[in-house]
Amino acid sequence: MITIIAGTNRPGSNSEKIANFYNKYTPEESQVLCLKDLPRDFVFTDTYGEGSTEFNKIVNDKIVNADKFIFIIPEYNGGFPGILKAFIDAVHPKNFHNKKAALVGLSSGHTGALRPLDQFSDILHYLKVEVLSAKPKLSGVELLIKEDQLIDERALSLLNDQIDRFSKF
Amino acid sequence: MITIIAGTNRPGSNSEKIANFYNKYTPEESQVLCLKDLPRDFVFTDTYGEGSTEFNKIVNDKIVNADKFIFIIPEYNGGFPGILKAFIDAVHPKNFHNKKAALVGLSSGHTGALRPLDQFSDILHYLKVEVLSAKPKLSGVELLIKEDQLIDERALSLLNDQIDRFSKF
Amino acid sequence: MITIIAGTNRPGSNSEKIANFYNKYTPEESQVLCLKDLPRDFVFTDTYGEGSTEFNKIVNDKIVNADKFIFIIPEYNGGFPGILKAFIDAVHPKNFHNKKAALVGLSSGHTGALRPLDQFSDILHYLKVEVLSAKPKLSGVELLIKEDQLIDERALSLLNDQIDRFSKF
Amino acid sequence: MITIIAGTNRPGSNSEKIANFYNKYTPEESQVLCLKDLPRDFVFTDTYGEGSTEFNKIVNDKIVNADKFIFIIPEYNGGFPGILKAFIDAVHPKNFHNKKAALVGLSSGHTGALRPLDQFSDILHYLKVEVLSAKPKLSGVELLIKEDQLIDERALSLLNDQIDRFSKF
Repeated sequence: MITIIAGTNRPGSNSEKIANFYNKYTPEESQVLCLKDLPRDFVFTDTYGEGSTEFNKIVNDKIVNADKFIFIIPEYNGGFPGILKAFIDAVHPKNFHNKKAALVGLSSGHTGALRPLDQFSDILHYLKVEVLSAKPKLSGVELLIKEDQLIDERALSLLNDQIDRFSKF
Repeated sequence: MITIIAGTNRPGSNSEKIANFYNKYTPEESQVLCLKDLPRDFVFTDTYGEGSTEFNKIVNDKIVNADKFIFIIPEYNGGFPGILKAFIDAVHPKNFHNKKAALVGLSSGHTGALRPLDQFSDILHYLKVEVLSAKPKLSGVELLIKEDQLIDERALSLLNDQIDRFSKF
Repeated sequence: MITIIAGTNRPGSNSEKIANFYNKYTPEESQVLCLKDLPRDFVFTDTYGEGSTEFNKIVNDKIVNADKFIFIIPEYNGGFPGILKAFIDAVHPKNFHNKKAALVGLSSGHTGALRPLDQFSDILHYLKVEVLSAKPKLSGVELLIKEDQLIDERALSLLNDQIDRFSKF
Repeated sequence: MITIIAGTNRPGSNSEKIANFYNKYTPEESQVLCLKDLPRDFVFTDTYGEGSTEFNKIVNDKIVNADKFIFIIPEYNGGFPGILKAFIDAVHPKNFHNKKAALVGLSSGHTGALRPLDQFSDILHYLKVEVLSAKPKLSGVELLIKEDQLIDERALSLLNDQIDRFSKF
């Protein structure tokens, strides 16, 4: 099972649109976790103690039950969104160990979220997650999406290549 | 005004103890912001819109009114705590521009939060914040603190040297 | 074929000793490339043009003919040795594409070459090389080696675990 | 005295052209060090022992005698050029301590050498060098230079802003 994680809680995010694209086209069984669906106070309520039933159900369904992850990571202030790391911090590390991940970067600017991808790869390696080297960087992402669909040929080609590589990784 | 930011919301954190140490010994006017005092749902309520009165007051008092910051950064999963970046993401970037920062890393393990310090320095440079090169790395931090006081001579020396350098930076 | 690269040209380096350890214990066919055996002026003579016969033979034998690499990386000035990246810069990138790598860090200090490992992993991902997440960090490396042999139990265990994981990667 | 370091030995590099631009427009006393002028075997001859007279004279004139550095850093294989770090490795660290640096990134691609700038900033912080947060990223650098002159208005504006900030840093 692949869980595709839209790495922000921003309403109507491009990350969620790209996550839905992946969910449609990835050949393996897959599901989406959008961080906007986390409990609104999980950073306080679910991080240092036992966690609420609601939060633990999400972790069980979307993290424990998956052996592969695709992280859709927008650039916020030159890094990955804080909420993405806050979610990681609220999950027991053993639930990531020895699993696999692919990453996609989104940015308004010209760098395609390069730094967030680098920094998050380091975190995943720390968590004993194998990280696919192919990490599409979608710069100027607003121009690549129209009516919730990814319309840019180069971006589509990068993502399809990544899907292909990830299925063999 | 220096704001010393304890970079986690974990109850009874070592970060808060180190922040209090700094607040006591730094020669300039200073105050502490502990992330445990943020509104519990700020990641959802105060990040993409106008922000609550409570959150905006904290930003005004602790960020807008400060020209220097000391970030106390514990290592969580090989990186900085997600909540620290989530807080940055909820503040308008212009409130950091052209200000100055010093960083301290805390870890249970042997690396002294080296990676969190590196990654957070990159974020601060992105936000046009000047970052002091001296960044004490406190490994095995549990052993350096006793009854809420920093008791380790080497750690004290590193922090005092940093305080001295930061006052001239 | 695995090529084990001792990432420095320092005479009598610990990196070379660790490379020899790997060469002895790795179950797959393997060979060592120690950077001290590169032509002394390769950074000028072999980097931007066609390369000397001597240099090209090394690249052919040790890079083109290998499908896996183990990089032994000591920490120099908080990063990987410049000569290691200079060697990468002198080899055509296509000779690394779609291959696999494992990394080991060595340091005199306490961080076990964490930053060099992170930074070099980014470079390898750029070169389309898959990088094993398990990257042993050998801090205080001088104390782990005696008479050219690795004698530390914890280090031996880390390296054996890495060898095992890399053979399945 | 500012030393402007063209961070590659590639003949006719854009880095050298940008270094010459800086040398002409920076208001403080300045000089250029282009790495192509290093002894061709310095990585072997001058790195681990006492160093040749020729190499030591360069270090004395260009590093010891300077209190500020501007590093012009092209992107090679997703990182800074190996020769730049090899040069750092051949100089005693104390010759960098407590000095100041500004960085400029050059790339053919779209990221403006973001990763090389991040990684090299970490190295400089390790060497106790203060690093200016403003680091112009010149993407598609070939299009910004004509007949050895920087002709792009945006690039000129970024560099002039950096020169201004660095003189007050």
